[in-house]
Amino acid sequence: MARRIPPSGPIQQSKSPGGFIDELAAALTPEQVAVDEQTRTTYAADLGPVLDLQLPVAVVFAQSVEDVQLVVRSCAKHGVPIVARGAGTGVSGGAHAIQGCIVLSLERMNRILRLNADDETAVVEPGVVNADLNAAAAEHGLMYAPDPASYKMSTIGGNVATNAGGLRCAKYGVTRDSVLALDVVLADGSLIHTGHQTFKGVAGYDLTALFVGSEGTLGIVVGVTVRLRYLPRDVQTVAAFYPDFRGAAAGVLAVGRARVQPAIMEMLDAGTLAQLDELYGSDLGQRGQALLLIQTDGFGAAAEAALVREVLAAGGATVTAESNAEAERLIDMRRSSRGDEVDNEYRVGEDVAVPRSRLVDYVAALEAMAATHDVQLKVVAHAGDGNLHPTFWVDRVDMEVDTDAMSRLNKALDDSIDAALEMGGTITGEHGVGQYKLRWLGLEQPGPIRELQHRIKELFDPAGILNPGKAI
Amino acid sequence: MARRIPPSGPIQQSKSPGGFIDELAAALTPEQVAVDEQTRTTYAADLGPVLDLQLPVAVVFAQSVEDVQLVVRSCAKHGVPIVARGAGTGVSGGAHAIQGCIVLSLERMNRILRLNADDETAVVEPGVVNADLNAAAAEHGLMYAPDPASYKMSTIGGNVATNAGGLRCAKYGVTRDSVLALDVVLADGSLIHTGHQTFKGVAGYDLTALFVGSEGTLGIVVGVTVRLRYLPRDVQTVAAFYPDFRGAAAGVLAVGRARVQPAIMEMLDAGTLAQLDELYGSDLGQRGQALLLIQTDGFGAAAEAALVREVLAAGGATVTAESNAEAERLIDMRRSSRGDEVDNEYRVGEDVAVPRSRLVDYVAALEAMAATHDVQLKVVAHAGDGNLHPTFWVDRVDMEVDTDAMSRLNKALDDSIDAALEMGGTITGEHGVGQYKLRWLGLEQPGPIRELQHRIKELFDPAGILNPGKAI
Repeated sequence: MARRIPPSGPIQQSKSPGGFIDELAAALTPEQVAVDEQTRTTYAADLGPVLDLQLPVAVVFAQSVEDVQLVVRSCAKHGVPIVARGAGTGVSGGAHAIQGCIVLSLERMNRILRLNADDETAVVEPGVVNADLNAAAAEHGLMYAPDPASYKMSTIGGNVATNAGGLRCAKYGVTRDSVLALDVVLADGSLIHTGHQTFKGVAGYDLTALFVGSEGTLGIVVGVTVRLRYLPRDVQTVAAFYPDFRGAAAGVLAVGRARVQPAIMEMLDAGTLAQLDELYGSDLGQRGQALLLIQTDGFGAAAEAALVREVLAAGGATVTAESNAEAERLIDMRRSSRGDEVDNEYRVGEDVAVPRSRLVDYVAALEAMAATHDVQLKVVAHAGDGNLHPTFWVDRVDMEVDTDAMSRLNKALDDSIDAALEMGGTITGEHGVGQYKLRWLGLEQPGPIRELQHRIKELFDPAGILNPGKAI
Repeated sequence: MARRIPPSGPIQQSKSPGGFIDELAAALTPEQVAVDEQTRTTYAADLGPVLDLQLPVAVVFAQSVEDVQLVVRSCAKHGVPIVARGAGTGVSGGAHAIQGCIVLSLERMNRILRLNADDETAVVEPGVVNADLNAAAAEHGLMYAPDPASYKMSTIGGNVATNAGGLRCAKYGVTRDSVLALDVVLADGSLIHTGHQTFKGVAGYDLTALFVGSEGTLGIVVGVTVRLRYLPRDVQTVAAFYPDFRGAAAGVLAVGRARVQPAIMEMLDAGTLAQLDELYGSDLGQRGQALLLIQTDGFGAAAEAALVREVLAAGGATVTAESNAEAERLIDMRRSSRGDEVDNEYRVGEDVAVPRSRLVDYVAALEAMAATHDVQLKVVAHAGDGNLHPTFWVDRVDMEVDTDAMSRLNKALDDSIDAALEMGGTITGEHGVGQYKLRWLGLEQPGPIRELQHRIKELFDPAGILNPGKAI
C-alpha cells in the first residue's frame, strides 16, 4: 500500500479513506459515521480562530467506550489522525480538524452514570454538558465548581481536555482540582483508569493531572469522576463602578488586602459595558467606565460583601447594593459577554494571566498597545486569579482600504503576549494552546521543556494519531 | 572499569565509592559530604517502617541549586543512586537509603526567596520547614494551606515529593493544589522550570503535577512556587464525643448533609483518646469513646459551628462548646497524636482513604479485623476526605512467646488494604507509596497503569539513578 509522510508528524496515512470509512460504518452503525459535506463543515472547527480550514474525512459519533476503542484501533491501523471533540466551544482551535483526520464527537456519550451525594462525587460520560451536571448536583445541594463561561454548552470532557477555568476558580479551583479519576482510551485502543474515587490519593504518578489539559493529544477521555462541592448557603453580589479600568484593577488588590476570598471577581472595561448595554438595553456605561463585579458565597457571604463594599468605596468606587435579581442578571450578562462572538482572523480573544500585583500595570499596557497599533480593544478579566481576556479586533470593512490592519492586529496580539510574559505571566490561563497559540508557546516554554513534552507525547502516542500538531 | 548490574534496576555502579566521594568533597566543601557512620545511620531512614536497613555511602548536604546539579552529574557519571531527602519525616520509607546510594539532604536549602503578599504567592527553597513558611506568611495575613501533622518539622520539598495532605485538605486541598511552579534538577543534571507564577495556567502538559508526589524518582525539586491563602478571620472549634467510633463516622456524613465544609474534621477513636490522656493528662477518655473534632473557619465560622453543633447533637453526640484555648489545645493534641511514634516492623500506621459514604463500614471492618487477628488498633482519620490512619501493632515483648504475632500483624494490614480497595478506596491517601507500600500497589493499580508509570520513569531517568525502587 502506498503511504506518504505528511510534514506535520510521523503519521503514515492510507491513501484510501473510503475503505477505512466503510470499515468504520460497518463496525458502528451508519448514522454514527457522517461523510456529508455539511456535517464535515459543521465539525471542522471549534470557536477558535481558523487560519487553515480543513474538513475531516468523516465525523464519527461515539456512543460508548467500546465505540471509542474501536475507532481508535481502526484509525491506528490506517494511520488516520483523530481529533476528539466535545461541544466544540473551545476557543484555541484545539478541536480544529486537520488534514486527513476524522473528528470523533463524544457529545452522544452524555449520561451521568452515578451521582453519589454522600461521597460528594459524580461519574459522568465525557459528553455531559457542564450545566446539566450542575442541575443534577443541585438537587442534592451540590455543585460542580468549574464554570467556564461556556458552561451551558460545553461538556465535561471538553473541560477536562483544556483544564477549563471559569469565574469561580480563585476560590474553587480549575477543572483539574475537581477531577479525581479518568477513564482514558489510549492510542492503541486500550482502556485505562487513572486516579481514585476518593478526595485524596497519592498512589503512583499523577496520570490524571497529566491527561487533564492535554487537549486530546495523549488519550481520549471516556469517563470522568469529579468531586462536587456544596451549593453555597448564601450568595451576595457587589457591583462597583469606576471612572477607569485601572481603578477597578486596584480594587481587586484592595479586596485581596482585606483578605476576603470572593467566589467571583470579574472586571469589565468600558468596551465590554457598552457591548452589554447594546445587547441587553442596560445602562451600565452610564454608571461608570469599568465595573468590578464581585460575588461572595457561603455562610459568611453577607459579612464578606459588607467588607468588600466598604473597601471598594474607600478606594473611589461607586458601590451599589444590587438586589438579588439585578445581581444575578449582571453575573449572567457577564457570563454571556463572549456569548455569540466567534473569534476569527480579524478578532482574537486573548487569555493571558499575570500575577495579581501586575493587573494594574498590565491593563495600562493593554490600553497603550491598542492606541499604538490603532486596533479595537475590550477586556474582561477573571480578576481574582489575574486571568485576563482582552479581545483585539479590526473591522473587516477596513481591509479593502486599510491593508495593514491585519499586521497591526497581529502586532498588538504579540505585544500583549510579550507584556504578559515580561510580568511573569502565561500565554494561556484557561483556554489552552490548541492550534492558534502554538505561535507563542516557545516564548513561554524553552526548548528543553517543550522537548520533554514531545517525548511524553511520543510515549503515549508513538504513531502520532491523537490530535497531532496541537497543545505542545 | 568493572561494573555490576544490581537486581533492582538498570544502574551500573562504580566499584570504588571512595574516588567518587573524594571527587564530590573536592567539588563541594568537605563539611557538605559526610561519610562517618553516625551521620550515615542518622540519614539512613525516614520515619517509615524499615525492613532492610541500608546505610548510604555518604550523606551530601546541598546548599544551592548548583550543588544539586553537581551532585546529580557526578552520580550519573558514576552510576550512584540518589535518595533525596528533606526532613526525613515521611512514613512510607520514600527516603530510606538503598544499597550503594548517597542521601542528598536538601535541609540546608531553607530560604524563603520571595513572599509576594499581593500576588499571594511565595517562592521557597525545598528545605524550608512548612511551619516557617506559615509563620512568614502569617505576617501578611496569609497561610500555606497544606498542613501535614509533621508541619513543624517537615519541609516543603518533602511535602511536594509526597504530595502531602494534612488536616485542612477537604477544604483547602492537598500540596498539589497549592503548588504553582517547580524548579527541578533532572537526572542529567539539567535544571528545568515547570508551571507558572500565576494562579491559573494551562500551557502544555502539567509537568508540575507530574513531579508532585513522584517521591524524588523523576527529578529533584530545588525550588517551589506556592499559592498562599488567606488566614481565616475567625476560627471555631466543635468537640463532639460519641459512645462509639461508628457514631462519630456517622456524624461526619451528617455534617456533609448539612452542607457545611469544615476546615478540619478529625475523628479519634478510644485508643487514640487513651493515648492522648496518658501523654497530656487530659480526661478525653472519660468524655466518650470517640471524638469528632471539627474546626470551621472564615467569615461564616460561627454560623457554621452553630449548625454543626445542632446537627451532631441531634445525632447523639455530646457536644461541648470549647473555649478557644481548650479548642486550640485539642487540635494541637490531635496534630501531635502520631508525634513520637516511629513506625517499625511491629507497629505500622496505615493511610488508606475510602469514599466518605463508606467511613462507617470501614471503621466497623477495622474493628473486626483487629479482633480476628488479635492485634492492637487505634485510628485517627482526616474524616472530611475519608482518609484514615489506622495503626496496627503487636507488643514487642510478645515476640518470644507469641511467635505468630508478626504474621497476625501482616494479615491485619493486608485485610485493611483489601477492605479499603473493595470499598473503592486507595492504599495511600497522603503518605505516598515509598518503599513500604509497594507490596500493595499492584492490588490498586493493574499492570498497564504501572507499566505506563515505569515508562515515564524511564523517560525522565533512563539510568535509574533517582530513588530507584520507590513509589511506582
